[in-house]
Order: sequence, then C-alpha cells, then structure tokens
Amino acid sequence: MSFAATATDQIAQRRAPRLGSREADFLAAVTRLQKLTAADLEAVNGEILSRMQSPVRMIPELAGHLIKAGGKRLRPMLTLASANLLNYQGNDHVKLAASVELIHGATLLHDDVVDGSALRRGASTANIIWGNKESVLVGDFIFARAFELMVEAKDLRVLHALSHASGIIAQGEVLQLTTQKNLSATFETYLEVVEAKTAALFAAATEVGGLISGRNPQEEAAIRNFGLNFGIAYQLIDDALDYAGFEATLGKTVGDDFREGKMTAPVVFAVARARDDEKSFWRRAIANGDIKENDFEKACSLMERDSAIEDTILCARRYADKALEALAVLPDNTFSSALGDLVTTSTARAS
Amino acid sequence: MSFAATATDQIAQRRAPRLGSREADFLAAVTRLQKLTAADLEAVNGEILSRMQSPVRMIPELAGHLIKAGGKRLRPMLTLASANLLNYQGNDHVKLAASVELIHGATLLHDDVVDGSALRRGASTANIIWGNKESVLVGDFIFARAFELMVEAKDLRVLHALSHASGIIAQGEVLQLTTQKNLSATFETYLEVVEAKTAALFAAATEVGGLISGRNPQEEAAIRNFGLNFGIAYQLIDDALDYAGFEATLGKTVGDDFREGKMTAPVVFAVARARDDEKSFWRRAIANGDIKENDFEKACSLMERDSAIEDTILCARRYADKALEALAVLPDNTFSSALGDLVTTSTARAS
Repeated sequence: MSFAATATDQIAQRRAPRLGSREADFLAAVTRLQKLTAADLEAVNGEILSRMQSPVRMIPELAGHLIKAGGKRLRPMLTLASANLLNYQGNDHVKLAASVELIHGATLLHDDVVDGSALRRGASTANIIWGNKESVLVGDFIFARAFELMVEAKDLRVLHALSHASGIIAQGEVLQLTTQKNLSATFETYLEVVEAKTAALFAAATEVGGLISGRNPQEEAAIRNFGLNFGIAYQLIDDALDYAGFEATLGKTVGDDFREGKMTAPVVFAVARARDDEKSFWRRAIANGDIKENDFEKACSLMERDSAIEDTILCARRYADKALEALAVLPDNTFSSALGDLVTTSTARAS
Repeated sequence: MSFAATATDQIAQRRAPRLGSREADFLAAVTRLQKLTAADLEAVNGEILSRMQSPVRMIPELAGHLIKAGGKRLRPMLTLASANLLNYQGNDHVKLAASVELIHGATLLHDDVVDGSALRRGASTANIIWGNKESVLVGDFIFARAFELMVEAKDLRVLHALSHASGIIAQGEVLQLTTQKNLSATFETYLEVVEAKTAALFAAATEVGGLISGRNPQEEAAIRNFGLNFGIAYQLIDDALDYAGFEATLGKTVGDDFREGKMTAPVVFAVARARDDEKSFWRRAIANGDIKENDFEKACSLMERDSAIEDTILCARRYADKALEALAVLPDNTFSSALGDLVTTSTARAS
C-alpha cells in the first residue's frame, strides 16, 4: 500500500471533510458542459430512445425508466466534448456517445440486480419495479443495441476500444464481487476494480472521441489518459461520498457500500489502521454482514479519526492531477476548459 | 393459428411419438459434421479457451465449467460448415464461429439464472455452483469478449449481423418471459419467441459464413435462410422433446418447460384443444404454477390425445423443409450433404 504510506506524511495538511458542501460547484461544471454540448446531447437522447424501441412492450418501459431517471449523462458528454475539443467535424460522435451511455445503462441494470439495490438517483430501481429476471434480460438487450449502434460508425479502432472496455468492465465487476466482504482486500485490488468497472468506460468514452477526430498518436493517447484518470478520481470520490455524503444532495443512498460489504478505499484504509479491538467490529460488519444500529455511524467516526476518507480524497486528487496533465497537451479551448473544470470540481465535491 | 388448422387435416398420417428413438441418428449426423470440421473446431475451442482467460480467477473457472459441459457445438459448426460449403479460403471463420459460440454461452448463463435451472447437459449449472450474481457478470464478460473477437475479423457486415442478432435474442428472451404462465399466448407469439431466441443466432451463424466467402446475394440469402429455418425447426423439436423425450438420452431434465410455465407449442396446442373441464388443469399447472404429483404425466397424456406433440413435430418438419430448400440453391458438396443430414435427422429425433 505505497499510496497509504505516502499519504500519511501529508497528515498535517488535512482538515475534516465538509460533507459534500461543494456539490453545487460540481453540478455547475456539469451544467456548463451540458450547455456546451446541448445540441449533440439532445441528438444522443433521441438516438438512445429510438434504440430502445421494441414490439416487446416491457423493453421500452423498463429502459425508459432507466433513461428517464437520467443521471448527468457524464459519459456521453465526455465523448461529445472530446470530439469537439479535437475539432471533429462529422456526426458519428453522437452515435458513439449514445453507445457509451447504453453500455453504462446495461451495466447499471445488472449492477442493481447483483447488489440488490432498491434506489438509484432517488427513484426505485428497475429490479424492484420489474424484477431481477427482467433487468438481466433488458440489460442484455441494451448492451446488444449499444454494439449495433457503434458498428454503424464503421470504425474498427473504435469498435475495438469499446468492445475491449466492455470486457474490462465486466471483469472489474466480477473482481469487485469476489473481494466483497473480504477484509484482507488490498488498496491495489481496490484500484484494479475502480480502473476496470468505472475508469475503463470513461477512458473509452474520451478515446473514441479522439479516434474519430483523426489526430496524432500523442493527442489520441492524451485524450484517453484524460478519461482514464478522471474516471479513477471520480470513482474514488464517489466511494468517499458513500460514507461522507448527504443523501439529499446526492440523490443516492449513503451507506450502501457499507451494507454490501464493499471493500472500497475508505474501508481498506480504516481496516488497515484499526486497533486490535476494532478489528472485530469491521469483521462483524463487513465480513459477516451483521450490521447493528449505529454501526454505520461508528464506521464513519473511525474513518474520520483515522483519516480514511481524507486519504481517499487525496488519492483522488492525484488522479485528477494526472487527468489535468493529460488535458494540458491538448488544444486550449472552451471544451478543454469545461472538462478541466469538471475534473477540479468533481474532486472538490468531498473536500 | 393457421398452422394448427392445417395440421389437423393431416391427422390420418399421425402415429404416436416414439419418444426420441432416433436420437442416435441425429447424434451420428452431428458426429459426421464434427469430423468434417474437426481441425477448424479444434481451433475454435482453442480460441474460446484463450478468450476466457482473466486474472480474475472466477472467470476462467466459471466459463471453463460452461465450456467443458460442452454440448454439441452446433452453432460454431454451422459457421464453419457454411464457410467451407461456400469454399471460403481464409481464417476468419474460426474467430466468428468462436464468437457465435460465446454469444450462445453468455445467453445460456443468463437463461439459467432467469429460469432458475439447476441442470444443463447432465451437470449442475453455474448459477447453482457459483451463484446468480456470478453467472450474470461472467455472462456479461463472455458477451463482451464475443464482440471483441468478432471485431478482429474486420468485416462490418459481419459485425452488423452478429450485433443485430444479439439484440434480437435478448428481445426474444424478454418476450418469452412476458408470455410465461400466460395461457392466452398464441402460436404466433410462440413462433416469434423461437425465431428470436434460437433461430436468430442459427441464422447469423450461417449468414456470417456466407458473408466472408464473397458469394453472390442469392447465395448469401440462401445460407442465411438455411440457418434461420433450421433454427426454428430445431427449437420446435427441442420443445416437443421437453414433453416427449427421455431424460437419459437427452442429458437434460424433461419437464422443465412445464414446471416453468413456458408457453411452448405443445402447451399452446393442448390448451387450445382442451375440454372445458380440462382448462382448469392447465390454469392451475401453467398459469398458477401449482403443480401436483403426476401433473406432468397428465399433461403428456392430454398432449398425446390431442396430437399436440405431433403437430409440433409436423410444424418443425415444415421449417426443416424450408431449410433443405435453401440448401438446394447452394453448391452440392460434402458440407451441404452433412448439413442436410443434420436437418433431416434433427427433425426425426422426436418422431
């Protein structure tokens, strides 16, 4: 755990997390990017809706629920902004952005089944409304439609990038499942999970924006690295917020990771720093899943005492810095500026 | 239900099903095709195994179990035989055949989760050994790898065919789920399910063999139609055998469809022909899923009395004939002869 060791040196610079007080700045950065890509984003939404049509009525109903719940459309915006940043002149970025969002949507449906989640973005999940079987099969349908759509862009490098990323995502989900409730899971394994389940799609989303823009290999690598490192930073913050966020602000249930026994960075750090008599608490709550009243609060206070959240945030900042470094190689325009803002404010969310 | 009406006219030609007595002929036809494509099929198996490798140990374990359970490799053989029939000279047919089998494998994993199946090809299913969550996620991994593999063949028409088929399959699975336990499901709806969940992949398997072979549009259409119609016939027979087969011969559990309340052709026919006092039996067993001892035997005897199995078989023969007609347009060689045998013996399985 080399990062944890280095992070400990920075203990003096720490202050207690302000629990999502800068969420508004992040949402403003999202809105800025949404406005910059507004026309494209509308086309993406149209593409997504039309691809979810099917004579089998349950499919557009269930998919429509997922799509309406909406979210920030972060991943398709990354594709659109990357292509625009690199002065792309065609129309394939819309198809590819839609494809990226569909891959994400299929993953969400299957995730919620696997995690038994009941709430996403403040609304009941599809597995609760329609059932697990339905969510699995409609997820498969959405995934297949994502592929059909990306094939239409007729670019083999793009197809390789997106199909490869899809395999990596699934692999990351399996790895996460096998490390769940496993107190000896390391920070390195956690990072592998994050890179695979989240950052791989962020990376592919920006990469394909680059690939279709006909730029040089350095710029292609830079735009991909931007997405990859932003994705890691984003997930680290998300995992910090699951212990340090406000439910109302985030529109998601705080404490889900704890209840599911997920070995995210805050837990990995807290367990490594726990006193002997505290180990049994973590064993009971995480490994055995035997969670009593106030256990979540106890977990949060142990994390605060041992700077587990703060170190997670520090780690996120390192990846955010790498993302900004990658961005610095690329043209300086409104799109790169908006993407830079997005990274900076997203890491400040939990600080 | 136009078919059922026509079929009733043929009542004089009927005889009681001999319960899979010709299974050996079918297996001999499979073996003949396996021998004809032996070298390619070995390469396909190698490709499949190598694509299932992953540092996340559960993935090759679970996928390996699925692959070892094996099955007949019918779908990849269709791709290999179609390409060979059309004198294809390259090597992409191996990648595509492997990709087709991986799509099939991913579908099986998710099917077994959705159906809660415990047994496949005489072995415990992955969802029983590893769990539902694991099967869902490894299924996603296999599906993604199938796409990655087909992209390597660098043929956009092939990519369209296979990605489109994948969406159709998922759509068919959802349709099947929504018609389950629904006694008013029609024969037309049943056929839609069959075309989507089974025949679409058979069709794509033979189609891609044609697409890479550089033949004329008539031959491309014929090889696709061969797969499509064979797929429908094959599934009809499979559904007949679920009521009329021997467990030991088939290596699968007979009666699964009945227990799951699936509205397959034998049930659709039997329900349509049931006397008023028998309707309540079907309602209880299929719609309510309240199955008592000897209900399966009662269902089988009602089907026999009302020729529900025989009409299913007659219907299968019509599609088999269409498959043979499609084959007649294509070159006459050992591959077309072996494929013809396969179709003929597969429809005779349940006669």
